[in-house]
Amino acid sequence: MSKKNLIVGQSGGPTAVINSSLYGVVSEALAHPEEIEHVYGMVNGIEGFLNGTTLEFTEALPGEKLEMLKNTPGAYLGSCRYKLPESLDDEVYPKLFAKFEEMNIGYFFYIGGNDSMDTVSKLSRYAQKVGSDIIVLGEPKTVDNDLVLTDHTPGFGSAARYVATTVREITIDANVYEKKSVTIIEIMGRHAGWLTAASVLARKYVGDNPLLIYLPEVAFDENEFLAKVEAAFEKNCNVIVCVSEGIHDKEGTFICEYDSSVGVDNFGHKMLAGCGKYLENLVRNKLGVKARSVELNVSQRCSSTMMSAADQQEAVMAGKFGVQAALKGETGKMISFVRESNAPYKLVCGLEDVNEICNKEKGVPLEWITEGGSDIGPEFIEYAAPLVQGTVDVPMGEDGLPAFAYRK
Amino acid sequence: MSKKNLIVGQSGGPTAVINSSLYGVVSEALAHPEEIEHVYGMVNGIEGFLNGTTLEFTEALPGEKLEMLKNTPGAYLGSCRYKLPESLDDEVYPKLFAKFEEMNIGYFFYIGGNDSMDTVSKLSRYAQKVGSDIIVLGEPKTVDNDLVLTDHTPGFGSAARYVATTVREITIDANVYEKKSVTIIEIMGRHAGWLTAASVLARKYVGDNPLLIYLPEVAFDENEFLAKVEAAFEKNCNVIVCVSEGIHDKEGTFICEYDSSVGVDNFGHKMLAGCGKYLENLVRNKLGVKARSVELNVSQRCSSTMMSAADQQEAVMAGKFGVQAALKGETGKMISFVRESNAPYKLVCGLEDVNEICNKEKGVPLEWITEGGSDIGPEFIEYAAPLVQGTVDVPMGEDGLPAFAYRK
Repeated sequence: MSKKNLIVGQSGGPTAVINSSLYGVVSEALAHPEEIEHVYGMVNGIEGFLNGTTLEFTEALPGEKLEMLKNTPGAYLGSCRYKLPESLDDEVYPKLFAKFEEMNIGYFFYIGGNDSMDTVSKLSRYAQKVGSDIIVLGEPKTVDNDLVLTDHTPGFGSAARYVATTVREITIDANVYEKKSVTIIEIMGRHAGWLTAASVLARKYVGDNPLLIYLPEVAFDENEFLAKVEAAFEKNCNVIVCVSEGIHDKEGTFICEYDSSVGVDNFGHKMLAGCGKYLENLVRNKLGVKARSVELNVSQRCSSTMMSAADQQEAVMAGKFGVQAALKGETGKMISFVRESNAPYKLVCGLEDVNEICNKEKGVPLEWITEGGSDIGPEFIEYAAPLVQGTVDVPMGEDGLPAFAYRK
Repeated sequence: MSKKNLIVGQSGGPTAVINSSLYGVVSEALAHPEEIEHVYGMVNGIEGFLNGTTLEFTEALPGEKLEMLKNTPGAYLGSCRYKLPESLDDEVYPKLFAKFEEMNIGYFFYIGGNDSMDTVSKLSRYAQKVGSDIIVLGEPKTVDNDLVLTDHTPGFGSAARYVATTVREITIDANVYEKKSVTIIEIMGRHAGWLTAASVLARKYVGDNPLLIYLPEVAFDENEFLAKVEAAFEKNCNVIVCVSEGIHDKEGTFICEYDSSVGVDNFGHKMLAGCGKYLENLVRNKLGVKARSVELNVSQRCSSTMMSAADQQEAVMAGKFGVQAALKGETGKMISFVRESNAPYKLVCGLEDVNEICNKEKGVPLEWITEGGSDIGPEFIEYAAPLVQGTVDVPMGEDGLPAFAYRK
């Protein structure tokens, strides 16, 4: 068998460990020089590849520099949101495969969420159609944790650790005054509430804040919510409420859209505020108490100092496992996680048919959502606790701030 | 001299290291058992003290537990926003001093910002007036760094480290797509721009993001801003703009108030959004590019994992120095910081008349603000860089998340 080259790309929104997955793929590929000659990166995903932007890793990150990837948030290779045509007869496919041939690519890796797995699915199906022996594999990533057929997804653990830690810190901050107050914390997740559910990990004992947690898996009712806030004051005068950005009512209207009829800016355009801001105003006006809202925003997916060591290690493991699987001839698959036991926590990698994964979403099981939709049960805690473990020692630069890997 | 007791309180908004100052005061006081018998804390500041809520530290945090204060954000003792009456003839003063006598208080410490120094000023003036020998001292704290007569203020360094690190991370996150985008980052600071200025530390080289930085010290002009954003696209297609929450135009109108004429919620109440959200909409509508805004919010003052080791050590140092000064009979003073040299960075504590500090504010020197009000010069970097140095190893609990000190 003649030597082939490997190419890897990143796609969709970044996470704290998407570069750890990249590190896993690249470091393992470089460890097999007898089978893999060059390791390339697509700059800005498949879209950038089509435009001819690639890099070679031993040039871009020689020697020890490759290690820096593990602590660098964002997508080192840049990203794209490009959907390949549904029809495999489209002209883009032969164009892509001609480029693969030109660069002697034998292994194609794509790191991303369900949209990216769609790319993996199409390329592997096209390869099969035209009898190409190119190996096409997907590496999972998403803070949303919504990929099916895997115990969880790299990126979720770090984002969950960020959410749990930050909610605990905001709770401390909110507790300094002895006056009734409500703090609404808005957490990422349009359709799946995994990340918002992770706020329950901030709780130190039963009855501790956050006292109310709302996911998009269950319809949200404003009046029930207000009644529960009132009741929560009996437990703590400072009430912390965690909500997914995607909570909606039983008609399916997003709560963040409630404001759009009136929130218009100076130009007559709709002002888009989040559901947190809406609920803050609702609480202040209906209950007459101090209210504020905090949108955790992009730091959920790009905080390096709150990276989970478990998540980082698993992302590297999935990357390495993928290359080993590729060398065994596996293709059209996504690397998955299989939890063998919870105490002690033991995780191994598996392979799943990417066609069964792409364009599907996995929500939080309804039986893990308690109190009529305003709390999270112990099953979730058991599930999520191992994923947020361990502090990562991020190297600091001469300026005393985190030193990251940058593309030239 | 008979033994006296010491009491300490916290006031105003918390910071990441306000409990480090508390640790400094309490640990040093406990180290002088021949002069100080008991060390008490006021729960919820002077207001709580008036209501009779105090604790004793060897009971509340015995032995090693006291150490946990150093890594705990928020105000361990709780806080208040209570202003003592201007007239020293008010009945609250004899009431307070009777309570001091009852508890055999010889030393009164108050940790806070300029409002809290007002309390220190009034109590020390009242003590002088009635011939009381009670020692009254102020320990500085504020993320805003706006206290006069001190090089800087405990709490600022950690908040600045949070801002610089987070802006660097958000920049990485924003850089993944090759499409024009503007990210507005809204940073704490109504009147003083110190914390927003700290975003310049995120810059790795001249011409790097954040490309525009706006402080409240200089009037903000919308059209100039838009022109500068357009020009910034020549340096980077992803432009990061950092703004103080308190930026205002030359008439003194806050930019965050620009929306209030139209931002009305379902109840007819004004929707208060920040200036970041306003500028996001402005950029999207006027320049037609992708725009988003991130409000860094309370994590700036309560993030434990991004605490600056320098800030933490200095807060402890100021606390200890205060107790030593008290035992020498100093009163009516605030502990200040005097920078002896910058390379190597060397800082010592001093004492300043609290009457010269309370109710005053120190802004960023105008000569440190460059480019007609949209950038920060090297003087600030030289000033701020030493304050953000060093990572603090926050102990994790059994759940893998930060373990903090809590009042029972």
